[in-house]
Amino acid sequence: MFESAELGHKLDKSTYDEELPRLREQLLQAQYELVSQKGFQVILIVSGVDGGGRRESVRSLNEWLDPRHVETHGMGEPSDEERDRPDMWRFWRALPPKGKIGVFQGSWYSMPILERVYGKTKLADLDDALDRNVHFEKMLADEGALILKFWFHLSKKNQEDRLKSLQKDPLTRWRVTERDWHHFQLYDKFKKTTAHALRLTSTAQAPWYIIEGTDERYRNVMLGKLLLESIRKRLDAGHAPPHSIGNLPSLPRVDEHHLLRSLDMTQMVAKKEYETRLESLQGRLALLTRDPAFQKISVVAVFEGNDAAGKGGAIRRVTGALDARMFQVIPIAAPTEEERAQPYLWRFWRHLPRRGRLAIFDRSWYGRVLVERVEGYCSEYDWARAYNEINEFEAQLVDHEVVVVKFWLSITNEEQLARFKAREITPFKQFKITEEDWRNREKWEAYEQAVVDMVDRTSTEIAPWTLVEANDKRFARIKVLQVLCDSLDKALKRHRDKSSKKSRQGIPRNG
Amino acid sequence: MFESAELGHKLDKSTYDEELPRLREQLLQAQYELVSQKGFQVILIVSGVDGGGRRESVRSLNEWLDPRHVETHGMGEPSDEERDRPDMWRFWRALPPKGKIGVFQGSWYSMPILERVYGKTKLADLDDALDRNVHFEKMLADEGALILKFWFHLSKKNQEDRLKSLQKDPLTRWRVTERDWHHFQLYDKFKKTTAHALRLTSTAQAPWYIIEGTDERYRNVMLGKLLLESIRKRLDAGHAPPHSIGNLPSLPRVDEHHLLRSLDMTQMVAKKEYETRLESLQGRLALLTRDPAFQKISVVAVFEGNDAAGKGGAIRRVTGALDARMFQVIPIAAPTEEERAQPYLWRFWRHLPRRGRLAIFDRSWYGRVLVERVEGYCSEYDWARAYNEINEFEAQLVDHEVVVVKFWLSITNEEQLARFKAREITPFKQFKITEEDWRNREKWEAYEQAVVDMVDRTSTEIAPWTLVEANDKRFARIKVLQVLCDSLDKALKRHRDKSSKKSRQGIPRNG
Repeated sequence: MFESAELGHKLDKSTYDEELPRLREQLLQAQYELVSQKGFQVILIVSGVDGGGRRESVRSLNEWLDPRHVETHGMGEPSDEERDRPDMWRFWRALPPKGKIGVFQGSWYSMPILERVYGKTKLADLDDALDRNVHFEKMLADEGALILKFWFHLSKKNQEDRLKSLQKDPLTRWRVTERDWHHFQLYDKFKKTTAHALRLTSTAQAPWYIIEGTDERYRNVMLGKLLLESIRKRLDAGHAPPHSIGNLPSLPRVDEHHLLRSLDMTQMVAKKEYETRLESLQGRLALLTRDPAFQKISVVAVFEGNDAAGKGGAIRRVTGALDARMFQVIPIAAPTEEERAQPYLWRFWRHLPRRGRLAIFDRSWYGRVLVERVEGYCSEYDWARAYNEINEFEAQLVDHEVVVVKFWLSITNEEQLARFKAREITPFKQFKITEEDWRNREKWEAYEQAVVDMVDRTSTEIAPWTLVEANDKRFARIKVLQVLCDSLDKALKRHRDKSSKKSRQGIPRNG
Repeated sequence: MFESAELGHKLDKSTYDEELPRLREQLLQAQYELVSQKGFQVILIVSGVDGGGRRESVRSLNEWLDPRHVETHGMGEPSDEERDRPDMWRFWRALPPKGKIGVFQGSWYSMPILERVYGKTKLADLDDALDRNVHFEKMLADEGALILKFWFHLSKKNQEDRLKSLQKDPLTRWRVTERDWHHFQLYDKFKKTTAHALRLTSTAQAPWYIIEGTDERYRNVMLGKLLLESIRKRLDAGHAPPHSIGNLPSLPRVDEHHLLRSLDMTQMVAKKEYETRLESLQGRLALLTRDPAFQKISVVAVFEGNDAAGKGGAIRRVTGALDARMFQVIPIAAPTEEERAQPYLWRFWRHLPRRGRLAIFDRSWYGRVLVERVEGYCSEYDWARAYNEINEFEAQLVDHEVVVVKFWLSITNEEQLARFKAREITPFKQFKITEEDWRNREKWEAYEQAVVDMVDRTSTEIAPWTLVEANDKRFARIKVLQVLCDSLDKALKRHRDKSSKKSRQGIPRNG
């Protein structure tokens, strides 16, 4: 894997001086086209062994490019706000918008590799993390991002020489730390772990470039040229959607059985019983969220459902039980300009709650496989890959002690018609009914199929869907509260039982 | 001040039950108009003595309103990311966008009052903070926000009764903490301090409403009605700009003296000298930013100047000396949709750097008093009040150990013409010259006057402007680096000398 990067690559000064001005000019030109077109973002990982020249090369790049459109991230110790969310949150928040170049000196590979080398994790843990990274990068690439990953390699001998020479010079001595020497002791372990990681995560969409780090000129020109060629190629290719792969079909319907039609829509709760149970469930929910263990978890609740199924009313029965400072209801409407410049899931990641809080999504990331699928707002490839991306997203949440509850509020076609009509004649509810609602009704069957596929593909054991029979509003609200309370109860119990996770502290970060 | 709020106000249950449905309906109606028009945001502070019913009233409000368009903030302990920025940063980031209602249970008043009652600060410190709050709210109001401030009051006797009764009930016992009793001991001190604070900060644009907190029904209806009436009034008034006050004129020009014309624009640095000094200054800057004390401060550098004055080139000479992970260059272009939904300064607050970092603004908040003034993009009142708002903003930065350096890169009319022409014939620079640049040249004198006014009004002892004679690019770059290094040097020295600020830890927050 590292063979080509131990050959002693070098670039002599005169060639460098001759090539550089042209390279810089072309890079700037490409960057300005990128900035003005805003067609995609560039995500550049610059990593490698200590002393391999990451820092110097990133600095050169910043000098060559227009720094106003470059964002460089060091990714040192996570802040407490970052520690409160899934590991990947800090990378999501650092993603560059379209038109910009995001340089990651320290990336989603740093901690998994470091933890493995330090013996804090098992090989299986590393592989899980690498798998997550591959998914992440595939999603980024599918969303149009250009991903470049560099690994600056040094042979053992070269690393030792490099550290020694840095240490000899009074001007650079400060840069060699205890940690660097400690890592040098671990050289073979690092090399083995890195080779493994690079092999598993070098994909067609985001390959690794392993570059010999000994010679600064060689390293810089390689980095600059690869960046230039990659951007150039994408710019020249235009922004054709990268995929037009035909997807496998949904399960064909060959009999009359059907998930939604199998629901018993006649279920209801009488008014009197409703009031008693509502009060008791709200009381229970209030107590659960005041449990000290609740400060160690958080909740993401998703409300989806047919138009007029009563999502808003159900949400209010939940929030009515909560301290207003603990929750945030996030109504999902059309994405904003800043959200459109990011991968699809970004606008949901940004709203993830801290520990001890609840985020309640009124519509959600499932829009991709519901309205966007049915109305053709995205390509077939885009919604087809979304199932997987969503499962991966929710797995990361659950891994981080986030309780994920998902409700589909289902009403029958007839009940919806009755509610629409009632809205039209109630002055106070007229704002709730639009032409679009009537148009959507015409696609009832297509929406039904989308819901069935969604449930089949994203109801996982860690984040199952709850189908809520909502023809009777009282029944629906009680069921929602009941399921939410039960899920919380289970999570809190599990959390109390479980020995706390291995600490990830204590690994020195690169300065 | 509290007289009317100790009269034993009460609302009987039957009146309440009768009034409430109508009030709720009207509130919802008003909220939906607010949401659909997105004309302004509502900022609602709910504060008061412990046991005064803040929590309960905020919860009722969340029940009455559509929670999807309400954001409630508890404002407990600041996170480390928040502590790294000026005190007000956490409130800026929590501001609701237009169309939403932001409820602050805990606000920019909490800490200043608490610190004073606990004897951690002097009366003068409190007054400074209150003064800052008045400025902040005036700015918010001028930006169109509707601000409502509630103080729930209890007489000493009532507070004692309230705490005792909460404690007696097993269901509410958990809510009474040691801290509550401790605060009750401090009742008189709290009352005195609060009376002082409320008096100084009750303004026409953001008055305090002091409401007796004993009776829940009374309290809720007061809050609901005041909120309703205020929103209603603003909605019905339309969105006419609140001000059309004529401003005082700029200093008239009665002789030939003129700040910009007094610059010696012939100054230059020869190429050889430039190279030596550039290297030495960049080395010095690199060392300064690696000083351990640099981790305690941060830097905000502002670059403004005539078109083609060489801002970009100067910025690159600064960033060339820095570790790429330490800085962020923020190019200021037209505000995004999310930024337009917030007060003018919001889009600059969001980019404030953490400790140990530099934020370099390529154009800045001064756009308001430059291009927006000259081109008429905002009203005269808006740019006239901006001087004050900007000085206040920068004072908060400096208070928080942020080094603020501001450069105006000045070139002569003739030099600009020459550079524009050169850009037009250099293939690589054509993208840098647009029709707009030529149009702006026609307003040269108006821009000159705007620059002179800006410097006169915002060059403060804590954040002075540096006028940079930029006809010679080398001279300009050297001067920028020199001033930046000197400012940093001074700040680092001051920081080392100064005994560290009084700790603000150790004051229990409301749970």
